[in-house]
Amino acid sequence: MKANIFVTLKREVLDPQGDAVRRSLGTLGFKEVKSARVGKLIELELDGNDKASADAHIQSMCEKLLANPVIEDFRYEIVD
Amino acid sequence: MKANIFVTLKREVLDPQGDAVRRSLGTLGFKEVKSARVGKLIELELDGNDKASADAHIQSMCEKLLANPVIEDFRYEIVD
Repeated sequence: MKANIFVTLKREVLDPQGDAVRRSLGTLGFKEVKSARVGKLIELELDGNDKASADAHIQSMCEKLLANPVIEDFRYEIVD
Repeated sequence: MKANIFVTLKREVLDPQGDAVRRSLGTLGFKEVKSARVGKLIELELDGNDKASADAHIQSMCEKLLANPVIEDFRYEIVD
């Protein structure tokens, strides 16, 4: 089973890396970019086929290690 | 219009950050994690409503700035 976990900064947290990306894209001529935010994508390969159990475990992994709940949000999808 | 861009290391490129995540998850008791890879998620807000044009521009942004084609792959989705 595979899971994709998306960890993003909360809306109210400043993202200087995202701002740098937006400015650089503007410099390259992509003036249509209004904002850019940079987050993490964590791809996991998991043993087992029990989606409900995987779901609970991934939630727990995010809360314990993968995301910092003070400044980050997370979401995830389980694929095949 | 919003776009999510996913930048990941190519399969053949070593990912020490991903290995550290896998080991840490194992230490926390999540023994079912066989592998972990860490990539980037870049969320863009774009002016305009032309999906075909946005598609071409995002492809170009990835090739020119957002991904390093030597070691990284990218994919993206345009949402609303």
